[in-house]
Amino acid sequence: MRVLSGIQPSGSLHLGNYFGMMQKMIDYQRQEDLFCFIANYHAQTTVSDGKALARGTLKAAANFLALGLDPEKSTFWVQSDVPEVQELTWILSNFTPMGLLERCHSYKDKVAQGIKPNHGLFAYPVLMTADILLFQSDRVPVGKDQKQHLEVARDIANKFNNEYGDIFTIPEPEIDDEVAIIPGLDGRKMSKSYGNTIDLFLEEKALRKQVMRIVTAPIPVEEPKDPDACNVYKIYRLFLSKEEDEALRARYRAGGLGFGELKQELFEKIRDTFAPYAERRRELLANPERIRDALRRGAEKARQVANRTMRKVRKKTGLVY
Amino acid sequence: MRVLSGIQPSGSLHLGNYFGMMQKMIDYQRQEDLFCFIANYHAQTTVSDGKALARGTLKAAANFLALGLDPEKSTFWVQSDVPEVQELTWILSNFTPMGLLERCHSYKDKVAQGIKPNHGLFAYPVLMTADILLFQSDRVPVGKDQKQHLEVARDIANKFNNEYGDIFTIPEPEIDDEVAIIPGLDGRKMSKSYGNTIDLFLEEKALRKQVMRIVTAPIPVEEPKDPDACNVYKIYRLFLSKEEDEALRARYRAGGLGFGELKQELFEKIRDTFAPYAERRRELLANPERIRDALRRGAEKARQVANRTMRKVRKKTGLVY
Repeated sequence: MRVLSGIQPSGSLHLGNYFGMMQKMIDYQRQEDLFCFIANYHAQTTVSDGKALARGTLKAAANFLALGLDPEKSTFWVQSDVPEVQELTWILSNFTPMGLLERCHSYKDKVAQGIKPNHGLFAYPVLMTADILLFQSDRVPVGKDQKQHLEVARDIANKFNNEYGDIFTIPEPEIDDEVAIIPGLDGRKMSKSYGNTIDLFLEEKALRKQVMRIVTAPIPVEEPKDPDACNVYKIYRLFLSKEEDEALRARYRAGGLGFGELKQELFEKIRDTFAPYAERRRELLANPERIRDALRRGAEKARQVANRTMRKVRKKTGLVY
Repeated sequence: MRVLSGIQPSGSLHLGNYFGMMQKMIDYQRQEDLFCFIANYHAQTTVSDGKALARGTLKAAANFLALGLDPEKSTFWVQSDVPEVQELTWILSNFTPMGLLERCHSYKDKVAQGIKPNHGLFAYPVLMTADILLFQSDRVPVGKDQKQHLEVARDIANKFNNEYGDIFTIPEPEIDDEVAIIPGLDGRKMSKSYGNTIDLFLEEKALRKQVMRIVTAPIPVEEPKDPDACNVYKIYRLFLSKEEDEALRARYRAGGLGFGELKQELFEKIRDTFAPYAERRRELLANPERIRDALRRGAEKARQVANRTMRKVRKKTGLVY
């Protein structure tokens, strides 16, 4: 089963990204044929600072590799290193009714906000479709906000297949509702745009500062507390085994638990959990050629699959004369 | 001076195409650095029959080569053999306000006619922009209907250059009003959609039949005639030197000239003018590998220029990490 996932290149990474997506990706590679790419073309719809994009791409790759993505087991590459995806985007554009794109929420919302979007943003779902179809992906794990884009991909694939025969695998979405509920410092979904994140790979001091900012209720130390109403607990539990979780819940209910003490514990837990990854990440970023090398080999593997698809597509649509 | 021209692949060719565009192209190569490509990606917005597109591409190439396009002097290729143009299309999409495309007449007209267009048609001007900018074209000869698309190309190039420095040559349009006035059998502009064409490379019998269909006024043979009011003359003069033209005008005014006789003369003129080209075309189509070979070499030349541009574009926009 081929599972495809693209992530926007961003140097900084928070617990929400990790537990919501990256950990799952890294788990996939045990059983599935994971295709995972850094979506730098997509990022160009919002990032015009070329240096920032290049740096973000390298860091995103370092993050994935450090956290356990194995470039031998999986296919891991940078989107623009397989530019065939753009040729497919064009070809699929001719099977994409304008109405399909005009109805996409992500675009409509921007327009409703009074933003004057560029064509890249409008065409984004076609590029995403090409990403999926080029690699004959069976399954695509997406958040709820991307569900509609996957419907677009299925529509386009069906239209093309109706015209030319079964060229593309019709992708199945895998909507994971849990993705949304990794809470941030203030209990809302952890998100960069809310400024409520706990970031991975921070210096100790900065990490401790973030953890200490978790919003808690003014309940005296001695009183028993409800773990399910506590933002510290909601984050802490992500790191705990079932037994550890039960033990922590018991401490909440028993009373005598101070939030300061608990935050210190959580801080140490985060630091210690990610310490080995942080070390690997530092090593990789000190040797960027090793990162580039892994990505180059990944692109070669991805390109073989892409070329198999494109040979058929080019022939069927008349580009081979 | 680099002059760029793209033509849609179409196997059949009429006098309007020849005198309106192809002859001019072939003349350009004497003094200018002509870049001429067969726009098969563009054709995909309207042609979904892959076999027809492939056949049309090969025939269009044969037409150009037979009529005198010299692949050594000029750069002559098939658009999809330099797929870098699609990567540039994506990158430029992020510098293309939606409003710019929504205002394009060619798209607006289709929508006004109640046609539900595909995204390919909407995105067409961005691809055309990429065609122009990828090869750093100085001048682009276009018909009046394409004038707006060239404005789009200039807008996008300026926006990009403002962000990243002078990467692209700003193309100058070359609007040729004469293109519109090659008349057809009925005096209206010669056009496939009017069914009023005289086609090149027809069998003698079919060519004669077309010429005999030219619409003339019911004026008796013996009466003097006004050449400028005569559809036969308007086509005939395209083949004449100044002296021959004067002589023909004198025959009109003298009276005693029958349209049947004149049409026979014109038929012979067309046949004889294109006979050597038709022979070369037959030879080429009997040896399609020779055509493909010329196109392959052309694509290599074009690709060198394209890669010079793309190296800069990729670096500036952050695709090189």
